[in-house]
Amino acid sequence: MGRWEPNSRERLFAAALELYAERGYEQTTVAEIARRAGLTERTFFRHFPDKREVLFLGSAVMEEQLTKVVTEAPASASPLTAVAAAIEAVSAGMQERQDSVLVRQSVVAAHAELRERELIKRAKLAATMTEALGARGVDPLAARLSAEAGTAVFHVAFERWVEDRGRTRGLVDLVREGFEVLRTVAGGERT
Amino acid sequence: MGRWEPNSRERLFAAALELYAERGYEQTTVAEIARRAGLTERTFFRHFPDKREVLFLGSAVMEEQLTKVVTEAPASASPLTAVAAAIEAVSAGMQERQDSVLVRQSVVAAHAELRERELIKRAKLAATMTEALGARGVDPLAARLSAEAGTAVFHVAFERWVEDRGRTRGLVDLVREGFEVLRTVAGGERT
Repeated sequence: MGRWEPNSRERLFAAALELYAERGYEQTTVAEIARRAGLTERTFFRHFPDKREVLFLGSAVMEEQLTKVVTEAPASASPLTAVAAAIEAVSAGMQERQDSVLVRQSVVAAHAELRERELIKRAKLAATMTEALGARGVDPLAARLSAEAGTAVFHVAFERWVEDRGRTRGLVDLVREGFEVLRTVAGGERT
Repeated sequence: MGRWEPNSRERLFAAALELYAERGYEQTTVAEIARRAGLTERTFFRHFPDKREVLFLGSAVMEEQLTKVVTEAPASASPLTAVAAAIEAVSAGMQERQDSVLVRQSVVAAHAELRERELIKRAKLAATMTEALGARGVDPLAARLSAEAGTAVFHVAFERWVEDRGRTRGLVDLVREGFEVLRTVAGGERT
């Protein structure tokens, strides 16, 4: 336990999630998270400013992935198509880590302070995709609206996924359906 | 000053905005807002739980208006068209109250706590339109995505409007352009 171990960030995240689920978010201290992870408080604070930020560990990774997929989409892909590919990729990752994603979600959903933070992080994901589309030469307004509409599709799909307790459909499947429906409602008649 | 006057909510809102702009949001007390409005603190608390909520006075009115316009859209209107009409109507109102809308915006933008609250209120506006579309018989997923995509168009237009210091284009005009671009990016090729 005393020796140095890799992945301290991930271990702190896993420990925090366990404790939040077992005892509740408020009742858990940084000292307890560190102990459960087999690390020191000092190590905790090297990675996170407080116990709230642990829950947002995934944001930076998601931002990187979104940027990468948008950037690498074929030159012929429309902005919304590039955004859809990026969101599907991120969703596939979340589907694989389903258990921890769902525990995290239930902790966030139970605290106004965390829900608000989540909304801000989501706005940042849209900004990330807007920037990546801009770097592809997409017109700024088209970039922004594609990113924002795509983010909306993602979060509708995510909510449906969380609410479907039986998890009868995968997140990726729900995301794909969302983009289909968006194209239908936005591509229909204009009057 | 002592006599009863109508529109106390609106007067409290106007007084709060003046004070927030003059002295800053933190420095302003409920007692000062009430005094500036020529009302008592007791009257303040009859209308608002705290000095933060004064800034969100418009939300309920916007919700009503969105519901009304969506509900009254022609039966032939697509869900996104009904949403666009509702958002244009609300935007026209904001354009008319431009000065107070912009002061309010600068206060909200300067405080993390208020920005977070604003994001939550926006999510509520989308939920309101989803519900109104549902009442029109629109499929729930199409309703939700139309409302969310429309809300995204609104807030992109709103930001562009606020950032354009010369106010060279109206908010309604920017909203319309946003819906056009959304239809273009979402209606394009699918590969």
